[in-house]
Amino acid sequence: MKPRFQRPRPQQYTPAAPASRVVTSLTNPLVKDIRALEMRKVRQEAGLFIAEGLKLVADAIEAGWPIRILVHRSGEDKPMLARAVRATRQAGGEVLEVTGEILEKLSRRDNPQTVIGVFEQRLEKLDGLKIAGGEIWIGLDRVRDPGNLGTIIRTADAVGAEGIILVGDTTDPFGIEAVRATMGSIFNIRLAAASSQAFLAWRKGFEGLVVGTHLAGTHDYRDVDYGKGPCLLLMGNEQQGLPDELAKACSHLVKIPMRGQADSLNLAVATGVMLFEIARGQLKLD
Amino acid sequence: MKPRFQRPRPQQYTPAAPASRVVTSLTNPLVKDIRALEMRKVRQEAGLFIAEGLKLVADAIEAGWPIRILVHRSGEDKPMLARAVRATRQAGGEVLEVTGEILEKLSRRDNPQTVIGVFEQRLEKLDGLKIAGGEIWIGLDRVRDPGNLGTIIRTADAVGAEGIILVGDTTDPFGIEAVRATMGSIFNIRLAAASSQAFLAWRKGFEGLVVGTHLAGTHDYRDVDYGKGPCLLLMGNEQQGLPDELAKACSHLVKIPMRGQADSLNLAVATGVMLFEIARGQLKLD
Repeated sequence: MKPRFQRPRPQQYTPAAPASRVVTSLTNPLVKDIRALEMRKVRQEAGLFIAEGLKLVADAIEAGWPIRILVHRSGEDKPMLARAVRATRQAGGEVLEVTGEILEKLSRRDNPQTVIGVFEQRLEKLDGLKIAGGEIWIGLDRVRDPGNLGTIIRTADAVGAEGIILVGDTTDPFGIEAVRATMGSIFNIRLAAASSQAFLAWRKGFEGLVVGTHLAGTHDYRDVDYGKGPCLLLMGNEQQGLPDELAKACSHLVKIPMRGQADSLNLAVATGVMLFEIARGQLKLD
Repeated sequence: MKPRFQRPRPQQYTPAAPASRVVTSLTNPLVKDIRALEMRKVRQEAGLFIAEGLKLVADAIEAGWPIRILVHRSGEDKPMLARAVRATRQAGGEVLEVTGEILEKLSRRDNPQTVIGVFEQRLEKLDGLKIAGGEIWIGLDRVRDPGNLGTIIRTADAVGAEGIILVGDTTDPFGIEAVRATMGSIFNIRLAAASSQAFLAWRKGFEGLVVGTHLAGTHDYRDVDYGKGPCLLLMGNEQQGLPDELAKACSHLVKIPMRGQADSLNLAVATGVMLFEIARGQLKLD
C-alpha cells in the first residue's frame, strides 16, 4: 500500500481560512492513511509520525515542527486549538474534524486525547554531527523497548541533554508508544541514527568523554569529572549491555554500585541515574 | 469461577518422588486455573501469583518462597530444574510438565520462558510494620502503571531498600506485567498495602525522615541529610503527584532540578534518581 500523503504547499497568509473537513467515516482515505502510520514501514516511507494531546501538539507547531495533519474532535472549542488550527493551515497542513470514535481508532485507545498531530520526522545523519562543548548526548545501542526509549528521551530533555544517537537496529523512536512515553520531549531532543560501524567511525573524530556503563567497569560512576567538555553517555541494550567493540570505544567504563540482590537496573532508570550524575554540576533549583 | 487451588500439605522428605504430571491439554483444570490468574480478582482470592524463568523461580524456591505449582516444558533437562522440582515437591507443591504451546498460553507470549512458578503472595499489613534505623522504604501513592511499579521494585532491590508501601488503590504488584518488570526483585522486597487514611495514621508513629518529591518543594533533593535514621521516600502517582494530605505528612518536600523543556520525569526514573541519592553514602563499588 502506498500512502497518499502529499507534501503540502506552504501558504502565506489565509485571510478567510477554509472550513475544516469534517470526517465521520472510518473508511475515509486520509483516516486510513493515518491509521496505517501504526506500521513502522509506513511511517518510514512517509517520514511521518503521530503525536497526541492538544498542548503538546500546539507547542510543537509553535516551535516550528512541520505539521501535515491536525486531527481534532468535532465540537472542541478552545482558544489553544483555534491557534493550532490557524498555524496548521498557515504551514500548509490539513485540518480534520472527526468523531470520538475515529479518534479512538486512530489512537487505539479508550478515552483518547482530543487532538492528534501528524508531523514530519526529523532524524539526523551522524556524518555531519558536531557535539559542542558542554553538550550531553546519549548513545543507545540496539534499544528494544519503545517505553524505555521514550522515557530516555523524556529524561534527556529534563536534564538538558542535546540529543540521542540510536546505534544499530533499535525500536522506532517515532512509534506511537515511544512518542507517548516521551510526553512531548520527542520535539525537544535531537535524534540521529547510525549503524554500529558508522558510529565507531564517527567516534574517532569526537574528542569529548565517551562514558559507558559496563559490568567490567572499574570506575564508580560518581568519580568521573564530567565537567570537561562534551560528554556522550553510551548505554548497552536491555538484554546484553554494551558489546565489546562499543565498550572499547569508551574513554571511561563506569559502574553504578548496588547493594541489594538485584544486579542490574532497568535501562531507562540506569540512564536516568547516569544523566543526573553527568549533569549534576549544572542542575540547580531556580 | 472459584479457583480449585488447594493449600498443599507440606511433605517432609520424599525418597521416591512421584513422576511429574504430564499435561498436554489446554482444558486441563489446573492449566485453566493458572491461566485464570491473569485476572486480578482471581489472584487476590487465591492469594497466588506467577513468576517466569528458571533461575528466578529456582532462586525464589531456595529462598523459601512458598511455591504451589512448578510448570516446566517437557523434555527440559537441567540440574537447576531438577533441584527446583525436588524442592517444589518437598514443599508440598505440584509439578507440571507441559507442552510449549501451553507455556505460550500461560505466559501469553511467543517464545515464553520454559519454567513458570505459581507462588503464594506476601503482602504485609501496615499495623505491625516497624522501620528500623538505616532502612529505606518507599511509599507509592496510587501508582497506576504495572511497568513502573515493577521497575521501582527492581530499583528498590538494587539500592538495598527494605520495602514498599502501596498507598491507596494501586496497580497489582502481583500482576504478570509488574512481576516481569521486577526481574525477580519481587522476591527480595517487602510489600505492604494500606489506604491513604491508614497510612497517615501509621505515619504518626514513624519517627524517621519522610521525604516527598513535590512541585512546591523548596529543598534540592541533594541537600537533605539522609544519613539520619530510617527514610521513607513518598512518591505521588503518574498523573497528579502527591495530594496535599500526603504532602503535609512529609518531613521534607524536595525537588529534582531540571533544565530542559520537560518539567517532569517518568515515575520510575524519578524514584530511581531519588533512591540513588538517598542511598548515596551507602553505595560503594566492591
